[in-house]
Amino acid sequence: MGDHVKRPENAAISALRWEEPPDGPMLVVLDQTRLPLEEVELVCTDVQALVAAIGSLAVRGAPLLGLAGAYGVALAAARGYDVEEAAELLARARPTAVNLAYGVQRALTAYRRAEPEEAALAALAEARTLHAQDASASEAMAAHGVRLLSELVPGGGYRVLTHCNTGALVSGGQGTAFGVVSSLHRAGELRRLWVDETRPLLQGSRLTAYEAARAGMPYTLLADNAAGSLFTAGEVDAVLVGADRIAADGATANKVGTYPLAVVARYHHVPFIVVAPTTTVDLATPDGASIEVEQRASSEVTDLAPSPLGTQAYNPAFDVTPPELITAIVTENGVVSPVTAQALAAVCR
Amino acid sequence: MGDHVKRPENAAISALRWEEPPDGPMLVVLDQTRLPLEEVELVCTDVQALVAAIGSLAVRGAPLLGLAGAYGVALAAARGYDVEEAAELLARARPTAVNLAYGVQRALTAYRRAEPEEAALAALAEARTLHAQDASASEAMAAHGVRLLSELVPGGGYRVLTHCNTGALVSGGQGTAFGVVSSLHRAGELRRLWVDETRPLLQGSRLTAYEAARAGMPYTLLADNAAGSLFTAGEVDAVLVGADRIAADGATANKVGTYPLAVVARYHHVPFIVVAPTTTVDLATPDGASIEVEQRASSEVTDLAPSPLGTQAYNPAFDVTPPELITAIVTENGVVSPVTAQALAAVCR
Repeated sequence: MGDHVKRPENAAISALRWEEPPDGPMLVVLDQTRLPLEEVELVCTDVQALVAAIGSLAVRGAPLLGLAGAYGVALAAARGYDVEEAAELLARARPTAVNLAYGVQRALTAYRRAEPEEAALAALAEARTLHAQDASASEAMAAHGVRLLSELVPGGGYRVLTHCNTGALVSGGQGTAFGVVSSLHRAGELRRLWVDETRPLLQGSRLTAYEAARAGMPYTLLADNAAGSLFTAGEVDAVLVGADRIAADGATANKVGTYPLAVVARYHHVPFIVVAPTTTVDLATPDGASIEVEQRASSEVTDLAPSPLGTQAYNPAFDVTPPELITAIVTENGVVSPVTAQALAAVCR
Repeated sequence: MGDHVKRPENAAISALRWEEPPDGPMLVVLDQTRLPLEEVELVCTDVQALVAAIGSLAVRGAPLLGLAGAYGVALAAARGYDVEEAAELLARARPTAVNLAYGVQRALTAYRRAEPEEAALAALAEARTLHAQDASASEAMAAHGVRLLSELVPGGGYRVLTHCNTGALVSGGQGTAFGVVSSLHRAGELRRLWVDETRPLLQGSRLTAYEAARAGMPYTLLADNAAGSLFTAGEVDAVLVGADRIAADGATANKVGTYPLAVVARYHHVPFIVVAPTTTVDLATPDGASIEVEQRASSEVTDLAPSPLGTQAYNPAFDVTPPELITAIVTENGVVSPVTAQALAAVCR
C-alpha cells in the first residue's frame, strides 16, 4: 500500500483526491480502516498501491470505488504504465460493487478513444467528470429521498435506521442513504439516526458514527441484532441503505446484514428504501442469484473475541435483498416504486 | 468479586461447584468472561462476591443463574450471614432470567421451613436437588428435542443454527439448546452447527465455539447478521435457542438477536425451536410486553470499534419473540407445539 501521511485536523471529509505534479500525479485516499481514531491519508503513486488499498477496505463504498477505478486508470496513464493491465487489475480488485468496473471502463474508454498524446489527460478528465456526476447524483438522490419519505411517513421528525456507511466517505458528494439523512438533518426533520454497528468490520460504529458525530446529528449506535427490538418498540419510521450492485430485477446486493433487516422491516410494515446512483444498477446481471458475493477471511469474524484456535467463519461481505422486500429504490433520476425491472430500466435510460 | 484461581487443564466443564470445609463453605464458579483464553475460577465466600460475578456475566445463562441463586442462599446460611437480605440481593442481581429468582426462592423456602439448627443444611440440600433436577432436565430436553427434529425435518444430518450459549456452561447438565445439539452430535446426526457470534458480548464466539470445539463438533462461526444469507442459501434446517424467561402465553425473552432470527426463520419456513426447562416459564408474567428487559451499558457496544467519543448505544440484553413465531418449546416434561398458553400451562404442572 502507499505511504501514510497525517491529515490536517478539522478539514472537510475528502475520501479521495487527485494531486497534480510536482507532488503528483498521484491519488491520495483517506485510510478508512484507521477511522475514527486517526485521519491518515494513503498516497498511491501506482495502481498496485491503489489495488491494495481497495482490498484492505482503506478505500470502500460503491460510488467511491467507481471514482477510485477511474482515477486509477488515469494514474496509470499519467505515469506511463500499461493502462490495459492496470484497468484489469483494478476492475478485479473486489467482485461485488459494479461501480468499480464501471468507473474503470469509463476512464479506459476515454483513454482508448483519444489521440495517444492526449489519452492520459482524457482518462483524467473522464474521472473528474464521473466525480462531479457522483456529487450531483448525491444531491439529486437526497432531494428525491426526502420527498419520498414525506409521502411514505407523513408527519416528519423521522427516526431512520441505517446499516454500514454510505456518506461522504463513499462518494464524491454527500453520499447515498446518508446523503438523504444529512438533508433531513439540515431541514430539522431527523429525530434519530439509528446506526447499526455493522459487523464484522464495524463500518457503522467507526465510520457512520464518525460522520454523524461530525454533523451534529442525534444518533445512537446499536449491535446489528438489536434492530429487531427497535422495530418491536415502534422506534423506526424507515430503513435507508445503500447498494453495491442492483440487478436488472431490482435485487440489491449490499453489506451483509441488509437482507435480514429488510425481512424484519417487512414484518413490521416499515418502509425499506435503497438509495443508489444508477451507476450501481447492472442491467447485465438479471437477478439476485446471478450476483457474485465476495467471501472474506474468517479472521475478520474470529479475531474479535477471540474464538478458539482453528475456528472457521462464514463471512460473506454482502447479502442480496429481493425486489419484493424493497419499498423503493431512490436514484438520481427518480424513485423506482414498486420495484420492477421495467421501472428500473426506465430510470437508467 | 472473589479471588481468581487457575483451573487444572482438560478438566470437564464445571460452571459452578460447592466446596465444603476446610476450604469452604464456598461457591467456586468458572469465570466465563475469561473464556476461551483462560480457564479461571472465581472463589465466592460471600453473596456480594457472587452478585458481582453475576453482574459481570462471569456466571450467566438462565439455568445456571437458578443454581447460583440457590447455592448463594445456602452460602449465606452456612456462613451465618443474613439470609433474607442475601436472598433479596441475589434475586435482584439481574432482572430478566426468572430462574435466578426461582432458585433463590427454592433455597429460601427450604431454609425458612427447617428448624433453625438444620436450616443451612436444608438450603444446601435444596440447591443440590435443584442442581440434580437441572441435569436430568437437560437429558430429558435433549431426548424430546431430538425426537421433535426427526419429526419436523425428516432425513437426519441436521444443520442447526444457534444463538448465544446454552451448553454445559449454563446448566447443571448438558444444557438446553446446546444439549439437543450435543445429543445430535453423539448420534452422528449433526451435519453442521452454525454459531452466531452473539454481539455485543460474543457468547457465541467465545463460549459456544469453545464448547463445540471441545466436543469435536463440525461448527462454523458467523456474524449475527450473516444468518440471513445462510437461510437464503438453504443451509439451515432448524434454529435452536434457549430462553431467559417464557411468559404464560409462550412469548420468550432470550439474548438480543433471537427475535430477528425468528422473523427470518419464519420467512424461510424453517422451524424455530426454544429449548428451556419449565423453571424458565413464568406463569405470573402474562405476555411478552410484561417482561422486563435489562438494558446494559453503552460501552459494551461502543468500546469494540472504538466509536467516536461520546457515542451512546442502545443495548438491550434480551429481546422478546412472540409465540406465533415459535414452532415449538421443548421442556423436560415434553414439547409444546403449537405454542399456546393452555399447552404451556399443561407441561408446567
